[in-house]
Amino acid sequence: MEYDAEKLVNSILDSYKKYELTVKIDSESILNKDVLISVMEEVRRLLFPGFFDKNQLRGDFLKFHVGQRLEFIQYNLKKQVARALGDLELCSGCGRSAREQEAEEIVAKFMEKIPELRESLYYDVQAAYNGDPAAYSHEEIIFSYPGVFAVTVYRIAHELWLLEVPMIPRILTEHAHSVTGIDIHPGAKIGRSFFIDHGTGIVIGETTEIGDNVKIYQGVTLGALSTRKGQQLKGVKRHPTIGDNVTIYSGTTILGGDTVIEKGATIGANAFIVSSVDEGMKVSVKNPELHFSK
Amino acid sequence: MEYDAEKLVNSILDSYKKYELTVKIDSESILNKDVLISVMEEVRRLLFPGFFDKNQLRGDFLKFHVGQRLEFIQYNLKKQVARALGDLELCSGCGRSAREQEAEEIVAKFMEKIPELRESLYYDVQAAYNGDPAAYSHEEIIFSYPGVFAVTVYRIAHELWLLEVPMIPRILTEHAHSVTGIDIHPGAKIGRSFFIDHGTGIVIGETTEIGDNVKIYQGVTLGALSTRKGQQLKGVKRHPTIGDNVTIYSGTTILGGDTVIEKGATIGANAFIVSSVDEGMKVSVKNPELHFSK
Amino acid sequence: MEYDAEKLVNSILDSYKKYELTVKIDSESILNKDVLISVMEEVRRLLFPGFFDKNQLRGDFLKFHVGQRLEFIQYNLKKQVARALGDLELCSGCGRSAREQEAEEIVAKFMEKIPELRESLYYDVQAAYNGDPAAYSHEEIIFSYPGVFAVTVYRIAHELWLLEVPMIPRILTEHAHSVTGIDIHPGAKIGRSFFIDHGTGIVIGETTEIGDNVKIYQGVTLGALSTRKGQQLKGVKRHPTIGDNVTIYSGTTILGGDTVIEKGATIGANAFIVSSVDEGMKVSVKNPELHFSK
Repeated sequence: MEYDAEKLVNSILDSYKKYELTVKIDSESILNKDVLISVMEEVRRLLFPGFFDKNQLRGDFLKFHVGQRLEFIQYNLKKQVARALGDLELCSGCGRSAREQEAEEIVAKFMEKIPELRESLYYDVQAAYNGDPAAYSHEEIIFSYPGVFAVTVYRIAHELWLLEVPMIPRILTEHAHSVTGIDIHPGAKIGRSFFIDHGTGIVIGETTEIGDNVKIYQGVTLGALSTRKGQQLKGVKRHPTIGDNVTIYSGTTILGGDTVIEKGATIGANAFIVSSVDEGMKVSVKNPELHFSK
Repeated sequence: MEYDAEKLVNSILDSYKKYELTVKIDSESILNKDVLISVMEEVRRLLFPGFFDKNQLRGDFLKFHVGQRLEFIQYNLKKQVARALGDLELCSGCGRSAREQEAEEIVAKFMEKIPELRESLYYDVQAAYNGDPAAYSHEEIIFSYPGVFAVTVYRIAHELWLLEVPMIPRILTEHAHSVTGIDIHPGAKIGRSFFIDHGTGIVIGETTEIGDNVKIYQGVTLGALSTRKGQQLKGVKRHPTIGDNVTIYSGTTILGGDTVIEKGATIGANAFIVSSVDEGMKVSVKNPELHFSK
Repeated sequence: MEYDAEKLVNSILDSYKKYELTVKIDSESILNKDVLISVMEEVRRLLFPGFFDKNQLRGDFLKFHVGQRLEFIQYNLKKQVARALGDLELCSGCGRSAREQEAEEIVAKFMEKIPELRESLYYDVQAAYNGDPAAYSHEEIIFSYPGVFAVTVYRIAHELWLLEVPMIPRILTEHAHSVTGIDIHPGAKIGRSFFIDHGTGIVIGETTEIGDNVKIYQGVTLGALSTRKGQQLKGVKRHPTIGDNVTIYSGTTILGGDTVIEKGATIGANAFIVSSVDEGMKVSVKNPELHFSK
């Protein structure tokens, strides 16, 4: 079989003209996912120094190590943020240099948050250790728990979300989703000492609010009641509010922007909840009756 | 402790003789998963030009860009397809050159489908944007939505499936399964404007048929009623049929080859369905009763 | 905006002093996840020779191939095991050479298990082929089934767990969890001919025991009843026991260390089970009533 390469190329070029929405040509705002992930990994190495480095981290060189990592983040993240800003034309009418200056400021503000991020993650790691009898050490948790990875990436992405960076926060949390099966929208608000066990299948929607000392297991959805109205719902509070000291066991679904799980409540496995739960209540499910036969 | 390296090697060689099914020696049909994934990524770059390139895609060089990508796909995919054909001895008695010729024709037919794939994916991206209030732009969807990734890989794999390429379609969809938690068999038939939200835990079986404008959430299984008969069921329609404009909410399981969800039906979360649902019906679940205590 | 790099660096250094638990400086026990994964991949290439190699594996060089792979494993795994031992100070008071000697012995014992691992995996692959009508060949299963990947990694990690290697077994199974969505704790005991279909969302806890010829579908949890006591529960049998020839369909949760599913039982989809099930019983669920409306 012979085929006409020129004809094939032209048929594809025609389809680029016909469906322009899925074409991005002559754009100055190409984001690079690999670069974004390597920036995130560098931030993570700053947050947990020594755990994810190839070589021993020497105390006497620590200052230079930190400085060098910050330089890497500053240089690479600034370029990506500038592209993301250009892309959505948030800075309409401004040229590349204005966008780069805005990106520079955003990245500076982000880097100032690193000590606070470290504080948050310290409490998250403690919560994982205290909550899981299968945890043998804090190191094991930092090194291998998918929940800690997903929460670390979420906390980084959430800071960029608060700084109104387009695109990048979601790219980061979707990377964590891919690695862990835990889907946390960067817009969600999550308090201190948050522990996710196992985690696969968890969904935490954009307008969810979660208090301190909350524990969530695999397969939990904190979602919207209906998304039928699609884009008309943008910005509306669609996802639940979870108070302090709440535990939600596996497979439970909690839906709706008006649904509040008050502090101290415990929600059993496989519950489906679309209205609020009072403080300190234990909610269990009359699980589906079992039928036994030979 | 000293140990005898020769003895260790020999004990492993003995196990190669004993369990030959899991050994592949002197075979001419070694598939290379890394190459297959890079071919898929090249096809994806052709389908969404400019989104996943490292550098800006210039309009004045676009034709050459497309031609070069097609050459890469043609060269690499042909070699892998030829190996896959050899492996299953589908072309029994024919030598390497006959298999390579067959592979050449298959790849040519596949490449001709790229404009149609672009059309399909344009509608999938539109469906995602219209269906999700958390979507901020079409770009964000193309760049970061796992559902769009999984459907893109499925649509590529399904074309190879229709061309009766062994092994490779499943390797591609299992790659997407690994990246996204969305398990779509390449044999499934899926219509236009298909939207998967969140997606983790979705299973869509081999003989499933899905119409146009269907929306599916995380944790949905479209599966077989029983697989106890194993290999005897090969080729039998075992998975459900889903009509146009159906929405299936999270955690729902729909089983059986005779089960038809007629057009316009809406299936609520956590339903377990093993028989057909009429056109336009809303199916909701009397969710397990909740028990509250202090 | 100008900012003071020195001040930024110092604020991060201060946070290292304040939260020392998440800092690892001047440690001799840095584990390298990339190296551990490449060791695991080498073991997997020994277990399924020829399937995952870039080039054809020639029979006349097979012996040297096996020897070279063992050398790679021996060299790299020994270094990582020595670091893991140092880290937990299991060998307190001993210097690096004593830890390296212990690691040498552990790795030797591990490598001797490779023929047995091959035997186990032969039966696992057979079980997948017999159990799944969508499987077209044994090769397809070895090459692309996530369940086979997860079980392979689990069986490797479990041998290291039995040899009391800290950290590394869990790092390996969490890698498989990330790749497949299947979370098997390395401490679980799993018999022969184990088949996981689809797999996303499966959780198998640390003290689970599973017999021979067991088949498990996506979304199944074999978990603990409560982990409220956290670290006090370490070492206690908290997860269920599953007898020979048991099948557990998708979405089912079985909890508790005293819960025994006796041999030959079949557990339907979406069951929630916290007490034992007798031999040969079929357990089905009265699924939530459906409500239909227009």
